[in-house]
Amino acid sequence: MSNPITSTLDPAQQKTAGDALQATVVDLIDLTLIAKQAHWNVIGQNFRSVHLALDELVSAARDFTDEAAERATAIGVSPDGRAATVAQDSGAKGIGEGWTKDAEITASIVGNLAALIDRLRERIAATETADPVTQDLLISITARLEQLHWMWQAQGV
Amino acid sequence: MSNPITSTLDPAQQKTAGDALQATVVDLIDLTLIAKQAHWNVIGQNFRSVHLALDELVSAARDFTDEAAERATAIGVSPDGRAATVAQDSGAKGIGEGWTKDAEITASIVGNLAALIDRLRERIAATETADPVTQDLLISITARLEQLHWMWQAQGV
Amino acid sequence: MSNPITSTLDPAQQKTAGDALQATVVDLIDLTLIAKQAHWNVIGQNFRSVHLALDELVSAARDFTDEAAERATAIGVSPDGRAATVAQDSGAKGIGEGWTKDAEITASIVGNLAALIDRLRERIAATETADPVTQDLLISITARLEQLHWMWQAQGV
Amino acid sequence: MSNPITSTLDPAQQKTAGDALQATVVDLIDLTLIAKQAHWNVIGQNFRSVHLALDELVSAARDFTDEAAERATAIGVSPDGRAATVAQDSGAKGIGEGWTKDAEITASIVGNLAALIDRLRERIAATETADPVTQDLLISITARLEQLHWMWQAQGV
Amino acid sequence: MSNPITSTLDPAQQKTAGDALQATVVDLIDLTLIAKQAHWNVIGQNFRSVHLALDELVSAARDFTDEAAERATAIGVSPDGRAATVAQDSGAKGIGEGWTKDAEITASIVGNLAALIDRLRERIAATETADPVTQDLLISITARLEQLHWMWQAQGV
Amino acid sequence: MSNPITSTLDPAQQKTAGDALQATVVDLIDLTLIAKQAHWNVIGQNFRSVHLALDELVSAARDFTDEAAERATAIGVSPDGRAATVAQDSGAKGIGEGWTKDAEITASIVGNLAALIDRLRERIAATETADPVTQDLLISITARLEQLHWMWQAQGV
Amino acid sequence: MSNPITSTLDPAQQKTAGDALQATVVDLIDLTLIAKQAHWNVIGQNFRSVHLALDELVSAARDFTDEAAERATAIGVSPDGRAATVAQDSGAKGIGEGWTKDAEITASIVGNLAALIDRLRERIAATETADPVTQDLLISITARLEQLHWMWQAQGV
Amino acid sequence: MSNPITSTLDPAQQKTAGDALQATVVDLIDLTLIAKQAHWNVIGQNFRSVHLALDELVSAARDFTDEAAERATAIGVSPDGRAATVAQDSGAKGIGEGWTKDAEITASIVGNLAALIDRLRERIAATETADPVTQDLLISITARLEQLHWMWQAQGV
Amino acid sequence: MSNPITSTLDPAQQKTAGDALQATVVDLIDLTLIAKQAHWNVIGQNFRSVHLALDELVSAARDFTDEAAERATAIGVSPDGRAATVAQDSGAKGIGEGWTKDAEITASIVGNLAALIDRLRERIAATETADPVTQDLLISITARLEQLHWMWQAQGV
Amino acid sequence: MSNPITSTLDPAQQKTAGDALQATVVDLIDLTLIAKQAHWNVIGQNFRSVHLALDELVSAARDFTDEAAERATAIGVSPDGRAATVAQDSGAKGIGEGWTKDAEITASIVGNLAALIDRLRERIAATETADPVTQDLLISITARLEQLHWMWQAQGV
Amino acid sequence: MSNPITSTLDPAQQKTAGDALQATVVDLIDLTLIAKQAHWNVIGQNFRSVHLALDELVSAARDFTDEAAERATAIGVSPDGRAATVAQDSGAKGIGEGWTKDAEITASIVGNLAALIDRLRERIAATETADPVTQDLLISITARLEQLHWMWQAQGV
Amino acid sequence: MSNPITSTLDPAQQKTAGDALQATVVDLIDLTLIAKQAHWNVIGQNFRSVHLALDELVSAARDFTDEAAERATAIGVSPDGRAATVAQDSGAKGIGEGWTKDAEITASIVGNLAALIDRLRERIAATETADPVTQDLLISITARLEQLHWMWQAQGV
Repeated sequence: MSNPITSTLDPAQQKTAGDALQATVVDLIDLTLIAKQAHWNVIGQNFRSVHLALDELVSAARDFTDEAAERATAIGVSPDGRAATVAQDSGAKGIGEGWTKDAEITASIVGNLAALIDRLRERIAATETADPVTQDLLISITARLEQLHWMWQAQGV
Repeated sequence: MSNPITSTLDPAQQKTAGDALQATVVDLIDLTLIAKQAHWNVIGQNFRSVHLALDELVSAARDFTDEAAERATAIGVSPDGRAATVAQDSGAKGIGEGWTKDAEITASIVGNLAALIDRLRERIAATETADPVTQDLLISITARLEQLHWMWQAQGV
Repeated sequence: MSNPITSTLDPAQQKTAGDALQATVVDLIDLTLIAKQAHWNVIGQNFRSVHLALDELVSAARDFTDEAAERATAIGVSPDGRAATVAQDSGAKGIGEGWTKDAEITASIVGNLAALIDRLRERIAATETADPVTQDLLISITARLEQLHWMWQAQGV
Repeated sequence: MSNPITSTLDPAQQKTAGDALQATVVDLIDLTLIAKQAHWNVIGQNFRSVHLALDELVSAARDFTDEAAERATAIGVSPDGRAATVAQDSGAKGIGEGWTKDAEITASIVGNLAALIDRLRERIAATETADPVTQDLLISITARLEQLHWMWQAQGV
Repeated sequence: MSNPITSTLDPAQQKTAGDALQATVVDLIDLTLIAKQAHWNVIGQNFRSVHLALDELVSAARDFTDEAAERATAIGVSPDGRAATVAQDSGAKGIGEGWTKDAEITASIVGNLAALIDRLRERIAATETADPVTQDLLISITARLEQLHWMWQAQGV
Repeated sequence: MSNPITSTLDPAQQKTAGDALQATVVDLIDLTLIAKQAHWNVIGQNFRSVHLALDELVSAARDFTDEAAERATAIGVSPDGRAATVAQDSGAKGIGEGWTKDAEITASIVGNLAALIDRLRERIAATETADPVTQDLLISITARLEQLHWMWQAQGV
Repeated sequence: MSNPITSTLDPAQQKTAGDALQATVVDLIDLTLIAKQAHWNVIGQNFRSVHLALDELVSAARDFTDEAAERATAIGVSPDGRAATVAQDSGAKGIGEGWTKDAEITASIVGNLAALIDRLRERIAATETADPVTQDLLISITARLEQLHWMWQAQGV
Repeated sequence: MSNPITSTLDPAQQKTAGDALQATVVDLIDLTLIAKQAHWNVIGQNFRSVHLALDELVSAARDFTDEAAERATAIGVSPDGRAATVAQDSGAKGIGEGWTKDAEITASIVGNLAALIDRLRERIAATETADPVTQDLLISITARLEQLHWMWQAQGV
Repeated sequence: MSNPITSTLDPAQQKTAGDALQATVVDLIDLTLIAKQAHWNVIGQNFRSVHLALDELVSAARDFTDEAAERATAIGVSPDGRAATVAQDSGAKGIGEGWTKDAEITASIVGNLAALIDRLRERIAATETADPVTQDLLISITARLEQLHWMWQAQGV
Repeated sequence: MSNPITSTLDPAQQKTAGDALQATVVDLIDLTLIAKQAHWNVIGQNFRSVHLALDELVSAARDFTDEAAERATAIGVSPDGRAATVAQDSGAKGIGEGWTKDAEITASIVGNLAALIDRLRERIAATETADPVTQDLLISITARLEQLHWMWQAQGV
Repeated sequence: MSNPITSTLDPAQQKTAGDALQATVVDLIDLTLIAKQAHWNVIGQNFRSVHLALDELVSAARDFTDEAAERATAIGVSPDGRAATVAQDSGAKGIGEGWTKDAEITASIVGNLAALIDRLRERIAATETADPVTQDLLISITARLEQLHWMWQAQGV
Repeated sequence: MSNPITSTLDPAQQKTAGDALQATVVDLIDLTLIAKQAHWNVIGQNFRSVHLALDELVSAARDFTDEAAERATAIGVSPDGRAATVAQDSGAKGIGEGWTKDAEITASIVGNLAALIDRLRERIAATETADPVTQDLLISITARLEQLHWMWQAQGV
């Protein structure tokens, strides 16, 4: 089937913005799965704080995933968020298996957030001329992830 | 690290219930990703109804994932819900890529639900003597998925 | 039209569970109509307490009716809750016409609840092997009706 | 027992208003049962829209049943809403048994609503001089049923 | 000061509707004070039911007082709800002083409601041609007071 | 296309009620636009009070527009609320352009409300025999606009 | 009937606290009626602000009336809040009849509040040794009325 | 371990206030258990009113227990609310075992409340100079229990 | 009257941003009226979905209208949203009169949205240097309209 | 007094289920008192997390106490939850007096939960044939306590 | 301008109460700023608990600031809460600059609370005869700050 | 202590954005204190409107303070919002002491807002290349303050 959803962007703009959004969708789904994995497997004195903070991270990541995917559709690009795609294309650092101490969880989340923020900052630069609407969305995702990055660093000192 | 979370189940009971719960966690995460993929890529006359119904399915699947994973932890078994694990172990049928017509989406969801229900019914039988608490949770998950199975069938006639 | 809704139950299981659910739907609709009739026609010193308690009974009965009927659909059995069917098949004891004193209303409700609980306990036994999901629903209906049975008895002493 | 609830209406006014309200109570209870029957048995492409719209109809009918029955009590007339009375006296057209396609359901609801509206308009005329308070209630019930009649017609074109 | 609020009613219409509304305001304020007096002084086995039911009556009477008074202003008539006016012009039967048994309270409320309903029915007739908007408000006040009249009678049997 | 929405009103009744409703829809949309224009352009000492009171007026007018338009559809008459129709057929007095002092705004709103109330009172008379359900709706719109007319007059004294 | 509600206060304490509370009930009911009268009859440039502020005053006065009356009952004293009692015993200054300019309303409310605060301060002194629980309630009523006294003064400058 | 929580009260003040609060905690926990026992075992015509009123009493007693215990901690005194301490030190009258008629329950609650109020009034006197903040809390607990004492007496007449 | 609202923008910047905002206000009001017209006149199989989706569009358009108009005031430009101005200046494509099939409504909404998005994208470019605050608002309006454009396209395939 | 509440269970079934429920009521009340004691006396770096988590435990235990006690009444068995009964019959391990470090509190809660879970698992086995409704309730209590057992273990590592 | 807000207090009483309230306003504003400073700069393992607990402290302090300032206005004294006044007159101990470890933050908050409580206790004594209404407010502020003082001490052990 | 919070910005970018955010935090805290001071000291005919509008300003300023301070932390810069820092570095114009007429308050707020907006516009320019995420936040703060600037100007005409 030829693409049934059209856009007022030209093909080059659409390609640039679409690539940025598809990569963001994949990164954020992986971040959600990593945070849930941590939510279930964390142990240690700070269990309750970390357990609750991880669900706030999950909630933010899920909302941004939906916004990024629906922005892709809005410019006529079909998003792909299936398990195999995520397992193969994600830019996150991942997380180990099994019960894990709270300090290790905290370090892991800080590392994953830093990796995703670096990639998002590149996409902000890349989409500036191609599509300012997409760039605006990437800026607001980055702002929130950087705030979370501070909070997780602060409790890891 | 030796297992830091103990349980009053004996090792055999713990193994049976733990396996059932771990498999359920993986199946339900995959169902969530499939439903979200469908939510973004559906097109056709019934777009709005299907788009909304998929988010109800996502919401149910996410709640059950959390309950199954936290039941695993409650009996001392560490759950694994990472992307690679899901991509490899899921018992769902999956979904194709790209824009997809509503009728095809409906058939795909019915098929995925039927596959997961079959697997859940086996686990209900398997956990009956090992751990009635786990069995009770699997029964309530199955009841809801069977209700959704009817609703998706009904709109596919 | 051949049955358009399929199920993973075999025909015998489907028959047993379906009969139990259809009979439950009819009983509960009649209970709702009886309780509403009482709600409008009660008189006496305890009018306000009884009037309000009857609406709580109506609310519980309506919710259970829907759950039983939708469980029937979920296993591929079409429920029948039409007025003529209810008038003919209900296992409730019914209620007299016209203005009725509060003590008489209370006794009538206790009697109707006892009759329905007896029938539900038989169905719990009947569905145990046929479909544990259906049995689970019947148990929760029975638990609530037995609690109401106590409350109505307690105020009739 | 002689009538324990008095009224400031004279006997003829009370008879006219009471008859109109009793007939309305019976019609509306039957409408509720018909709509619930349809809610459970509908199948087809528009399953979700029809399934949801039927519950809105049920909700409206239940509220009006209560208002009509309590208006009867307010003028000293005991209402009768028991299953056998409904099965015998209802002016609705009824509904067939078993799984039913959405278009057929829609036509059935339109027909039942039209039948009830006709009867209500007669009662509006009949109660004008007997009791303007009762007439006012019947007018507001009719207004809402006519709005629903339009909506069900509109989706059946 | 000459009347600063004008109206599209002619002077005769304004006089008829204004008198009906002013009398209604006074009656309803007195009903509020009577019900509060009863709320504080009731004693007896049914204390709790009567105590709570009186506050529902107060709430209804306060809302209707405001609607009647603001309808008066809307047709350019200044309402008067001061204590001395209420003490002098009210058509309610009043209530005795001191602690009072629940049955006596109930009888007193039924009597006061009946007196006010009689007066309202006369005003419904009087305003029919003068101002249908005012009549409509008086009908809805009467409908609610008659419903309360039934409820208080029902618990006094 | 021939009229797809039928009604139980005869053609003459339908014409009378439909004309009244269509004119009401147009008047109320214009009132909404006038009030919003005032909301944005008001200046002066009472800016805040007037600014907020205008949004209450907008909210009431929008609700009534919807009720009038849907009543038209309920009796089989297609409503027309497009910009050109409103600009041509509205019976409101309109409002000047640019920043406007609060006292001038208040006077303008009072004048527009008075004009619309006059037209509504004519329609109440016209629809009395044609369709009491439509008349009932027009009465309730008039009651609310007259209350607002008082409030706006009261603050303009 | 001898006093059916007992208290742990001795007769002299009960008399002192009871008199203070009965006088407070009467004053506050009158304040409510005065504020409602003002709410309906105010006209002028500040109509909206004054109209809204009066309803806040009514709401506070109603809550305190209930607290004072129920404190009286709690120490075995029957409160009297009937219209004739209020008209005769109130210590408020009252309010004139008919439409009244906003500035005049403001001055009247300030005067009434000042009169009631003076009387409350005397009762605070009087109840200090008799019943600290009653004194505590009178203090909180005074605190709120003095806050309102400031606000009404502030807008009258 | 030496006391880790300091206070600005001197040791004598701390002892007086701490004793009053510890005794209050014990009394209120026992009141909660007595009221729950009554809530489950009450029978009779007024079952529903008494059953509900008891839960309001439980809710008030639980809130006050927490406030008293946390006030103790705030002045550096560790509270003791364990079952054995309550069983040994409570000043309440207790309640008999088994199903109990509503009138007997009412009398029992009145008696228990009276006993606790007497003890609280002594503590109000005792803490006046030692700690006005603690006294203030005891006054508000007493005020509420005296209100409940009236209500339970009122329904026992 | 000379312009009473000043701004920190220079005259050229104010002119550019003001023109963009005024044109946006007019376009969005027209979009609101078009969507409401469609909401009332739609007929066909997908009546309910389209009927509901149109009210979501109305709600979004109304919020953006208010934001654009208040941004104009914030930079000292008086907005004009009167009916005649909208009828004359709107850049929307409009909508036909009378009952309209759902597919035709869908196509019409897609066309109107596309026209408005094109005009908004020009204004985003035009305001970039003149006023980034205004540009930011136009970007967020465009983002939401493009999302709606996708959704309406998706259901029109 | 002979037993006024009847049941459809035979005497042996009633005895088995009643004993299980009475023991559960006692255990859960003690758990509530232990958790509140801990809530007030905990000190240490994790004060806030532990303090809050204890109130969640209290809330869960209170709800289950009520459900177990009301299930006992529903099968005609009078529950006993008085302080002396709890102090004597509880199967919990108890808690020491005075200020206690957070780690010690955590260990104490884990120990108390483990003791109660063991006893509940025995009762699940005991009630399976006697009363599946009671068993179902005990299963859901156990499921929640085991989840809490994991969470308290996880933070104690 | 001479004082436009009058009071029923004599000048000496007004001076005593006014000084106490003004000093309280200043102390509480400074406490708010200190707590926000800590909220942003805290680091360490207990970051999340401390970060959240600080916002609860801010919220309490802001509410009390407003109550103290409005009590000052209610007795005719103009409060002063400007930055320079706070910087000069505050009795708090202050807080250091830059990122700060959680334990150090906790100690700082305990110290600041202790300093303010000491000053408040002096003002409670000073206002006892001058104005019991003001004293009552200072008592409730002190009660809450002492509760917070315990909580912050408890987590600093 | 070396900086414990890292950032992906380079040192120059971090310095530019950090300076802009720190200055914004100080300005906004001062704005909050000024608005609260005005809220308490305003007198005059428009007291109520101005009193309420000032609390809206306070609420907006507090939210923005938190966002600016937490954005600073997110890029590794410790914010400083202590009283002495605010008193020394604020760019606001300040406000006089004592009771102040409403018109004077309005002028003062307009002046303070204008001063802060000027400074914010400079920071928008300064951060454009250094950090678009920070610039985006400053733009949204400016947009809201400019809207408030208009509203306060509008009521001062």
